[in-house]
Amino acid sequence: MSSINRRTFIDRSLKGAGVTLVASSVGRSLTAAPQESRKIGYALVGLGNYSTHQLAPALKETVHSKLAGIVTGSPRKIPNWKVRHGLADAHIYNYENFDSIADDSAIDVVYVVLPNSMHKEYTIRAAEAGKHVLCEKPMALNAAECREMIAACKANGVFLGMGYRLHYEPHHRLVKDFAKGEKLGVPTYFQGEFAFRIGGPGQWRLKKELAGGGAMMDVGVYCVQGARYAFGEEPVAVRAQEFKTDPVKFAEVDETISWQMEFPSGAVANCTTSYNARTNRLYVSYENGVVEIEPAYGYGGIQGRINFDKMEFPAVNQQAIHMDAFALEIMEGRPPAISGEEGLRDMVVIDALYESIQNHGKRITL
Amino acid sequence: MSSINRRTFIDRSLKGAGVTLVASSVGRSLTAAPQESRKIGYALVGLGNYSTHQLAPALKETVHSKLAGIVTGSPRKIPNWKVRHGLADAHIYNYENFDSIADDSAIDVVYVVLPNSMHKEYTIRAAEAGKHVLCEKPMALNAAECREMIAACKANGVFLGMGYRLHYEPHHRLVKDFAKGEKLGVPTYFQGEFAFRIGGPGQWRLKKELAGGGAMMDVGVYCVQGARYAFGEEPVAVRAQEFKTDPVKFAEVDETISWQMEFPSGAVANCTTSYNARTNRLYVSYENGVVEIEPAYGYGGIQGRINFDKMEFPAVNQQAIHMDAFALEIMEGRPPAISGEEGLRDMVVIDALYESIQNHGKRITL
Repeated sequence: MSSINRRTFIDRSLKGAGVTLVASSVGRSLTAAPQESRKIGYALVGLGNYSTHQLAPALKETVHSKLAGIVTGSPRKIPNWKVRHGLADAHIYNYENFDSIADDSAIDVVYVVLPNSMHKEYTIRAAEAGKHVLCEKPMALNAAECREMIAACKANGVFLGMGYRLHYEPHHRLVKDFAKGEKLGVPTYFQGEFAFRIGGPGQWRLKKELAGGGAMMDVGVYCVQGARYAFGEEPVAVRAQEFKTDPVKFAEVDETISWQMEFPSGAVANCTTSYNARTNRLYVSYENGVVEIEPAYGYGGIQGRINFDKMEFPAVNQQAIHMDAFALEIMEGRPPAISGEEGLRDMVVIDALYESIQNHGKRITL
Repeated sequence: MSSINRRTFIDRSLKGAGVTLVASSVGRSLTAAPQESRKIGYALVGLGNYSTHQLAPALKETVHSKLAGIVTGSPRKIPNWKVRHGLADAHIYNYENFDSIADDSAIDVVYVVLPNSMHKEYTIRAAEAGKHVLCEKPMALNAAECREMIAACKANGVFLGMGYRLHYEPHHRLVKDFAKGEKLGVPTYFQGEFAFRIGGPGQWRLKKELAGGGAMMDVGVYCVQGARYAFGEEPVAVRAQEFKTDPVKFAEVDETISWQMEFPSGAVANCTTSYNARTNRLYVSYENGVVEIEPAYGYGGIQGRINFDKMEFPAVNQQAIHMDAFALEIMEGRPPAISGEEGLRDMVVIDALYESIQNHGKRITL
């Protein structure tokens, strides 16, 4: 029987709709437990903060998913994971023996939680091992890599999903829904800002070889995504501007980028990302109203307003819902809603943004 | 004796500091009335919404200022103004006899509240009539006009102030103060957005000859201003991007512009203005915190947060405080704090923004 967290339960409508509602159930007993069923086994590749503090705990709140293995290059981390998650040695891999995961029937999905430069390799190796793949953002270093990853998954008959958890967060789902224009009219303007003040040098996010880029690759991608789902269409042109105050710390990657995206409807997005500021907001102006999410992109604590009235949504575990949604897609043979193509489309935009920067802010058509 | 509004009173420390505190005094009796003194007489030139619904009412809440005359090209408006404000015919002018205002000793200040294209002419004519001038934003159609206006006021020995009322609004005063870096560290990023959905065609704001430009001239200027006082320095380079969805309605003026400003400290601003969206926000990220004002630029209802905690400031009548501050500057012979040079500096930036647009987003150094 699944482990059910007291604070949240996953609405069983998930099974029907293919997605996922989570309602707050503090102090509320679960009247009907979900059906017993096989759970999809996830192997986490890369045991950094995100795996340790978000994904592994989330896998204790899932109904259709469970932690089934880990892949790590740090043997010192293994004992703690074994204790905390009851993992047997048979399901613990390193980067050398990773491909033998093909023979591990407990593992259905490889969740790639590695530095950006390793996404392509481990996605393809996982696909070749016959495993479905969930890949963290940004999908890869550039669109060409994304296409290779999509092709490999297709060739091996496995699903490729992107770790865009916010598609399973209620405020963001509302923004996606409002793109249709039925609620507040057509959206005309998107403002996306995601920036934080990065810590000291030495971390992989500041190395071009590992990260592929700076703030844009790391958190700017959320705003590229956000604009695309807020408008429900694909951008036709972009422009970008780069700013750098610390050419030593940010010798290899971008520090601050502002950019604009034009959409077929005429809608416009203006966005900023930075490793030298703090901002975390998604804002959409429609013909007949506005929606603001701030903070917008965190794992929790998301707050939003419609026409400046607070939205009241239950807290959700985005990762748990997302992994369960992917698990159901696998079980039911439905292609993932948040697929590799989603990641590719963002990377096409990001490639164009970097091209614009290299051409002094030139308008790049897509 | 001055008319004291029950809801607000102007702190008498204003007289000492040269500026301006207003405390909420709802239900509170004024224990000491301000000293009897001569009041500075304002003539409002242009009796549109802003004069009618903001400035004239504000002049009933001032301590050192009063409505002393009007200038209008619409005779039908006169009777109502006479009744509501007790104005004698001797102080009511039209655009033909405007220059005879020179002989009207009741009028100390001409407040120019006309379409943008008329700011230069009426500022210069007022200066030549020996009157001090308060000029609405944007100061003029371009920086060259601003320089002529400044020169005319200087030549005639009168003060020229800009109607930048937000310098007298507590949230914005805090942002100005925080530029020094003593409270939250150095500011590194500014986000300014001011946009509204403009009404039907026919209004002067859509005519280039009268407005000089569109959303940028009308409301974008607030973000240019905001970035300058948030950082406490002058921009060294700018870039801008224009977007247009309705080339008929916006045949003559800009609909949507995004732009970036670079400052000597390395601080960056990314801003948007539009006649086809709704947004009204000022956001500053500092080394050690953030300040957000939203809505930011209205005549009232301004709200702000420091590190996401709501700031509690009393409601103020920005226009009343500003006009009184200018009145005191005149009485005490102190050059205005918010001077024509302030307006000029913004217009230098705006000229460069339009130049950038005409050069496909080229970085323009200032």
